Amino acid sequence: MSIATLSSPGTIGVGLVGSGFMGRAHAQAFRAVGGLFDLPLRPRLSMLADTTMDGATRAAASLGFEHACDDWRELVADPNVDLVAITTPNALHAPIALAALAAGKHVYCEKPLSVTLDEATRMCAAARAAGTVTAVGFNYLANPMLQVAREIVASGEIGEITFYRGIHAEDFMADPAAPFSWRCRPDQAGGALADIGSHALSMARFLLGDVERVFASLDTIHHRRPDPARPGTMLPVTIDDSAHMLLRFHDRPLTAHVCTTWLASGRDMQLGFEIAGTRGGLSFSQERFNELRLYRAGEAPGRSGFRTLHAGPAHGDYGAFCPAPGHQIGFGDLKTIEVARLLGAIAGHGTPIVDFDSAAMIAALSDAARRSSLEERWISLPRDAPAAAAAYASPANSEVDR
Amino acid sequence: MSIATLSSPGTIGVGLVGSGFMGRAHAQAFRAVGGLFDLPLRPRLSMLADTTMDGATRAAASLGFEHACDDWRELVADPNVDLVAITTPNALHAPIALAALAAGKHVYCEKPLSVTLDEATRMCAAARAAGTVTAVGFNYLANPMLQVAREIVASGEIGEITFYRGIHAEDFMADPAAPFSWRCRPDQAGGALADIGSHALSMARFLLGDVERVFASLDTIHHRRPDPARPGTMLPVTIDDSAHMLLRFHDRPLTAHVCTTWLASGRDMQLGFEIAGTRGGLSFSQERFNELRLYRAGEAPGRSGFRTLHAGPAHGDYGAFCPAPGHQIGFGDLKTIEVARLLGAIAGHGTPIVDFDSAAMIAALSDAARRSSLEERWISLPRDAPAAAAAYASPANSEVDR
Amino acid sequence: MSIATLSSPGTIGVGLVGSGFMGRAHAQAFRAVGGLFDLPLRPRLSMLADTTMDGATRAAASLGFEHACDDWRELVADPNVDLVAITTPNALHAPIALAALAAGKHVYCEKPLSVTLDEATRMCAAARAAGTVTAVGFNYLANPMLQVAREIVASGEIGEITFYRGIHAEDFMADPAAPFSWRCRPDQAGGALADIGSHALSMARFLLGDVERVFASLDTIHHRRPDPARPGTMLPVTIDDSAHMLLRFHDRPLTAHVCTTWLASGRDMQLGFEIAGTRGGLSFSQERFNELRLYRAGEAPGRSGFRTLHAGPAHGDYGAFCPAPGHQIGFGDLKTIEVARLLGAIAGHGTPIVDFDSAAMIAALSDAARRSSLEERWISLPRDAPAAAAAYASPANSEVDR
Amino acid sequence: MSIATLSSPGTIGVGLVGSGFMGRAHAQAFRAVGGLFDLPLRPRLSMLADTTMDGATRAAASLGFEHACDDWRELVADPNVDLVAITTPNALHAPIALAALAAGKHVYCEKPLSVTLDEATRMCAAARAAGTVTAVGFNYLANPMLQVAREIVASGEIGEITFYRGIHAEDFMADPAAPFSWRCRPDQAGGALADIGSHALSMARFLLGDVERVFASLDTIHHRRPDPARPGTMLPVTIDDSAHMLLRFHDRPLTAHVCTTWLASGRDMQLGFEIAGTRGGLSFSQERFNELRLYRAGEAPGRSGFRTLHAGPAHGDYGAFCPAPGHQIGFGDLKTIEVARLLGAIAGHGTPIVDFDSAAMIAALSDAARRSSLEERWISLPRDAPAAAAAYASPANSEVDR
Repeated sequence: MSIATLSSPGTIGVGLVGSGFMGRAHAQAFRAVGGLFDLPLRPRLSMLADTTMDGATRAAASLGFEHACDDWRELVADPNVDLVAITTPNALHAPIALAALAAGKHVYCEKPLSVTLDEATRMCAAARAAGTVTAVGFNYLANPMLQVAREIVASGEIGEITFYRGIHAEDFMADPAAPFSWRCRPDQAGGALADIGSHALSMARFLLGDVERVFASLDTIHHRRPDPARPGTMLPVTIDDSAHMLLRFHDRPLTAHVCTTWLASGRDMQLGFEIAGTRGGLSFSQERFNELRLYRAGEAPGRSGFRTLHAGPAHGDYGAFCPAPGHQIGFGDLKTIEVARLLGAIAGHGTPIVDFDSAAMIAALSDAARRSSLEERWISLPRDAPAAAAAYASPANSEVDR
Repeated sequence: MSIATLSSPGTIGVGLVGSGFMGRAHAQAFRAVGGLFDLPLRPRLSMLADTTMDGATRAAASLGFEHACDDWRELVADPNVDLVAITTPNALHAPIALAALAAGKHVYCEKPLSVTLDEATRMCAAARAAGTVTAVGFNYLANPMLQVAREIVASGEIGEITFYRGIHAEDFMADPAAPFSWRCRPDQAGGALADIGSHALSMARFLLGDVERVFASLDTIHHRRPDPARPGTMLPVTIDDSAHMLLRFHDRPLTAHVCTTWLASGRDMQLGFEIAGTRGGLSFSQERFNELRLYRAGEAPGRSGFRTLHAGPAHGDYGAFCPAPGHQIGFGDLKTIEVARLLGAIAGHGTPIVDFDSAAMIAALSDAARRSSLEERWISLPRDAPAAAAAYASPANSEVDR
Repeated sequence: MSIATLSSPGTIGVGLVGSGFMGRAHAQAFRAVGGLFDLPLRPRLSMLADTTMDGATRAAASLGFEHACDDWRELVADPNVDLVAITTPNALHAPIALAALAAGKHVYCEKPLSVTLDEATRMCAAARAAGTVTAVGFNYLANPMLQVAREIVASGEIGEITFYRGIHAEDFMADPAAPFSWRCRPDQAGGALADIGSHALSMARFLLGDVERVFASLDTIHHRRPDPARPGTMLPVTIDDSAHMLLRFHDRPLTAHVCTTWLASGRDMQLGFEIAGTRGGLSFSQERFNELRLYRAGEAPGRSGFRTLHAGPAHGDYGAFCPAPGHQIGFGDLKTIEVARLLGAIAGHGTPIVDFDSAAMIAALSDAARRSSLEERWISLPRDAPAAAAAYASPANSEVDR
Repeated sequence: MSIATLSSPGTIGVGLVGSGFMGRAHAQAFRAVGGLFDLPLRPRLSMLADTTMDGATRAAASLGFEHACDDWRELVADPNVDLVAITTPNALHAPIALAALAAGKHVYCEKPLSVTLDEATRMCAAARAAGTVTAVGFNYLANPMLQVAREIVASGEIGEITFYRGIHAEDFMADPAAPFSWRCRPDQAGGALADIGSHALSMARFLLGDVERVFASLDTIHHRRPDPARPGTMLPVTIDDSAHMLLRFHDRPLTAHVCTTWLASGRDMQLGFEIAGTRGGLSFSQERFNELRLYRAGEAPGRSGFRTLHAGPAHGDYGAFCPAPGHQIGFGDLKTIEVARLLGAIAGHGTPIVDFDSAAMIAALSDAARRSSLEERWISLPRDAPAAAAAYASPANSEVDR
């Protein structure tokens, strides 16, 4: 039982690396979770690491951590830290996670898991060797309405699934004058597909299972962006602004379409899907994530139509937040559910929503999509996650991809 | 400066009375607020009181309070408690608040302020005498999108306001077989108008200012409800299931309509309004409270229409929760904003969203509506809150009303 | 059987007075109806009258009428005209209808029935004396989805009705600079209530039955409007810009609210309602009149919500237009349904959707609302239409009202 | 000028082949168009042909045609028929159109143009040889809101187009027990792509221009369907139930996705698109075809969002139906606009919305998609319509495709 490894019985020492928006979101979730969920294990906010001692100290005070440090290695080494939460820039995910796993810690890493598939493969292997619990922050999947959607799909409530269309569209790069940033760099997991498309892929996989083949077309629409460091000059852009993917799944008859773009003017969170089954359908958008639209065949003539379900206590973890329907949970609450699941898993109950293996599968899928777009052909994915990762993470393959 | 009265500089000791859903919501808000808002004053969860020592102890542990007790008087008397938060059954609001004010504490009381206008009047007077800060939990008004709506109305952005239609409809009593409960008792502030209609009234007042006259029609649709204590028997019901109110305001040309019902099958949180002005319009529903629909006259031909604003950092306190638009805040976050405003007011910055005076005005308006329905005539309200309350709170008037 | 009086067996000669937008809409409906509905009686477009011979001749040619004239009296007298359709300015409705009824014709009159209740009463009496069929153009009620709504209410499918909120809001007078027109004149059935509010009232009555009492508040927001004839000068306005009405019905326990305004910036056709019953609910807006939202209680936990019905062949007369659902009918098609029902009634099958008696009831209700607003009290209406009309149509009463 | 060839000046003799739903829709449009549009040419309903004399005679009477016949060749040969409208089963489109063109008639053919590309090529050539006007019934494109969308795209109002996602989903084959019909037969232009997907393709082409390459994946989900002629037995199905297509356009930087399915339970008319541009966006669904959602960048902070435009007189041909916005046109009215454009084109004003060449391009695109799915590669299309058709219509190619 994972709980046996903890620094003190009944509580779990949390070390947080990073204190930007996502760091604060983690901290808030760890602070909130105990009052909302009846957990066998309560988080103790033990240590916060950031790049400067000053920043770390201030953040620790503001967020309620006992200690602060300016070196994540110190945090990873601290015996009071049982769980390392990583909210750093993407390139640091792998080194910190590998060190934490080597030290026998549980690891909770923000998405993306890593910036290369090779790293992802090594992280999965390290997690397996450590035997600790891992989680990756695909927090949109923590939504109770998505849990319901998955149950509806899995139970056959809407019959056999025959159609799927998914999307994650935002607009923060829609303006051609939006400056070059880490999001434009392939070595930082840049590009719309890696940055936000991974949410749409994780959602499709969450609902329909593992992908067997992918065909993709990635578009770089804006080939140059202003260099923020040198006003008046432009930097070349090679990453994708949009990606269309056709997916085929193990054990399902359909081809699905999943796409992403960060050029969709007017969209700030269009992460959603439409599913059709032989006896019903679903549609969802993160723009209104406390709702799920459900159609069920077989109603009386003239009385059928999509109905709008409002999140309520009948829908999974919603009840932890409010005993009445229709009151709505927020973005921060999704993070709290994610943490509750992680703590439960550490205590031996259930599994995290997305662990390193799952996140590696999503990364492998993104990589296969990139390759498909270059090679203009369907690319198959192995069913086994580490194998999938490995298949595309060899140096030779990486050369092809990047 | 209120802050001068605090038990220790820079922090404020919070005493919470009650640990039901609303008690937990208060506790979560006090725990969360420091990590989200940059406050001059940080809450210290000092003491929790509940009806049994066992329950209080468990709740204090779960919610992170330092001490527990089974007598709210002890909590009110504790010198470490600077702010008393009241989440008890309605009938206890007045006694606890009056004791807390007498002890020089700040008071944060759940709605309704009290069960009689007489109590409300005395609470307002006590607050004035104490000189401390008071707040009442009309948390829907803490919504950043409502703040924006108020600014749009106040600034003339949509011209002079000419039309208003407001509602709060839910369905938890729609089934005639829903049992008799405290909600059916006039001496517990029962009835749809007092229970949920007060939200619709507070919203109208928040947006349009004080009401000058009201005409109302209250309906008791289900005159008997099952007695939960004696299966098979029914208890008579005299409170309102629905209420329609026509309102006229000081300094505005329009008659507004505000209604409420708890019989609206299928509605779990239809708290909303439609506003028209000479140069635009707004519509809002709490069912999608991260959205506000805005119309502005003067667009190019063929390009005009209501636009849907998604809550984002440009909208008031949303930015405390997320730097990106479209991610949505939840019900609990509204409570956190309410607490942030309260703490700010205690520290001398700004005012609470709804204080005792404002809550008394809403109570006076409800009472006037009840009277109007009985007397079938328009009832005028004084502009001054305590006077308004006093006008309808004398024993003689109470007899007329109930 | 009415059909016995026709000028030639199997067909009915139509005389149309007026060729503005509504005249053309009538003509189009008469031309279309035969190809869509299987009718016992086919319309023959016999004669069109307008104010000038030239205009009438051109309109007759364009709309396919056999003859034209410039005097409606000639049309009414023509033996080939069996049915007189009136689309003139409001003040001519009564004289033409009375002449047509005196000549034994069927009459199809645009709304409003007349400009005074006195006229309405005489028109109802004349219709009764003539024994012919009458219809009034409240064409929104011809919507198949409204027919379905009425059936759902009447059948008890959503239980006993406990709540109703109706509206007709548009914005064509929202601009204070919109010029004075016939719509601003009380002697032309001006005012928001008469002009568009009558639709909201007719809808409430269509769904819930006859009104027993009304309380109303009418607002004149813009007291002066520019005189289009004399640039730079203003004319005083006395009619209502908005009206709020509380309605109580025979045999129903609820108070309903119905309101209207022509000041609702951004609204071009917000004619709709929300209905709650003990076992379900409905909501509708003419803005999307091919849809009806239905809620039914008793669904499995977590699966309940309002569903959106799309108009289809399962919904009344929709099937006459399209064999597949979701294709949508248009405004003109509502007129065609209205005409189909009228022709059916003339042939002895069914009744028109709104006849003179029904229209008189709506007029009486509007008048009672106006009186209520002036006298600030509830006004009762007799149950019998002509009596209702008569009660408010005596010269003495008219003096009070206007 | 085409009008020079007409049988009588100022009018055009219409011959209609077929009197099913689409035949009646044509007839209604021809009857309605004169009263709504100010046309240089008025249709005369000259002759109706159907398979039996009895059926043709009845239909002609009901729909107002002067003559009836039971042989389309007689209709085509009739000197009073100037325009031949074809609403027969798909396999007859080519023979009738070719005969009519050979006789120098204008031709208005329901979609699909033909059942093979070879036929389509010959029809385009014949039209060119005849020099008459042709039109094909992609009536959804007649929608005024689509005209507006095209103008917004073409004018640069929302900047450069960077993203497109289109769909046509219905559910009439969602039930695996839906019987085998002509829709399941490749030799009848069966399959979701040919039957309804062509609408989604025509819409993409209407908005973005000609397609340069396509990659597709067609799914046959239900491989057997019940034989309606032999209860209890099943027939094999080889046509597509769903199709996903990636499209690249001449002169545009983006890859678009267009998909179709007739398995989408709960969808009866989900024909729509989302478009993003560098300065705005559009979304549309035929489910609410009197609306268009528009986003424009550059609004004041906190005031941006998609706005919902309601069809009104500012939007193209809407004004022919109603002088006020928000009243909505219906499916039949789209047909009337299509006819108005056709008659205008015959009179020398403008062009039909979709002519034979355009329809052949759509057919060529469908065929290329089918081929791409089989060959799992991108397929290029020539820019010139007849060439495009010819490229895929040779007997050799047909063997590959089917």
